[in-house]
Amino acid sequence: MKPDKPESEGSDTKTRILEAAASVFASKGYHDTRIDDIVEASGSSKGGFYFHWPSKEKIFLSLIDTFADLLEDRLRERLAVARGGIGRLDAALGVCVETFGKYRSLAKIAIVQAAGLGLTFETQRRRVEDRFVAIIRENLAAAIADGSIPPIDPEIAALVWMGALDGIVMRWIQTGSPDPQVALPSIRAILLRSIGIADGRIIS
Amino acid sequence: MKPDKPESEGSDTKTRILEAAASVFASKGYHDTRIDDIVEASGSSKGGFYFHWPSKEKIFLSLIDTFADLLEDRLRERLAVARGGIGRLDAALGVCVETFGKYRSLAKIAIVQAAGLGLTFETQRRRVEDRFVAIIRENLAAAIADGSIPPIDPEIAALVWMGALDGIVMRWIQTGSPDPQVALPSIRAILLRSIGIADGRIIS
Repeated sequence: MKPDKPESEGSDTKTRILEAAASVFASKGYHDTRIDDIVEASGSSKGGFYFHWPSKEKIFLSLIDTFADLLEDRLRERLAVARGGIGRLDAALGVCVETFGKYRSLAKIAIVQAAGLGLTFETQRRRVEDRFVAIIRENLAAAIADGSIPPIDPEIAALVWMGALDGIVMRWIQTGSPDPQVALPSIRAILLRSIGIADGRIIS
Repeated sequence: MKPDKPESEGSDTKTRILEAAASVFASKGYHDTRIDDIVEASGSSKGGFYFHWPSKEKIFLSLIDTFADLLEDRLRERLAVARGGIGRLDAALGVCVETFGKYRSLAKIAIVQAAGLGLTFETQRRRVEDRFVAIIRENLAAAIADGSIPPIDPEIAALVWMGALDGIVMRWIQTGSPDPQVALPSIRAILLRSIGIADGRIIS
């Protein structure tokens, strides 16, 4: 059984430790970060840390989940007010570029260094990807239903899009190229054509 | 300095050991495979093994390179006789489905278990992907030059295709779904539309 949760170890402390961990991982890298560094940077205590996470690996995986939650929240928020299939794609691409751009150093560590965590990380990555494939599929299905794109297989199209975005984002984070601002119009045109939209019109 | 290469440790032996390693890794998994198992299955000797590879990890990475070489050879062979942009895509998709289908258990081990090798594997994976991105880009550039597809950014399109194919192949190998035979027509239509071809005609 867990001990009663003391006031100082509530969700504010948890957030503060997570934020400190993000910044320490980003500056020192995964392997050189010690739990003590995170505790110190957060102005928290070892007890506070271990109340929430049993290890450095677990807080790291929590950070990835937190990032995925943040990306999903922003996506859903912007998708809710976007209009039509093209508007939704633009909203989604914008959120990805902004969010990965803002947290690029953290994303780099998550992607490059987490590879060393092996299967644990692969499993989590698959789980995160599945969430985003579902969001893309839902939105494509809605766009098919309201006639803004032609009938296509939304599952396969969602997998193609997820793979394409994943591949380009990974490459950009690891190598700095292609620059997302420069590549965005091409990526947008290719993805839109792939679901049957060229120059803002339905094709075929 | 390496010792003189004895007759029995030439390229035939090397191929035999690689083939044995592929089959042992596929049946026992990466972690449970011992070098002794590979030596025994190949009817070779420990000396023969260590003449070519210093460790289990190195022969495993060699196998991935061998698989990439095989895929590239088959691709280039079929692309050389394929006609036009669409014919080349069909040839390429056919080679991928056949080759990954034939070596699925090995590919599964390479992808799922190699994650445990961490950065070494990530670096190799990036190198292998770069080779295939280059092949896709060359072929797209040729198709643009001969007018069989409209002018697009061949680099970005190649990254989109690589990411899409990588994502779908990884998912299929790890989960068994989507079935490539069933999904192929949708994937083909989506990829062709993405570069400006619908129903066999240039769009826009």
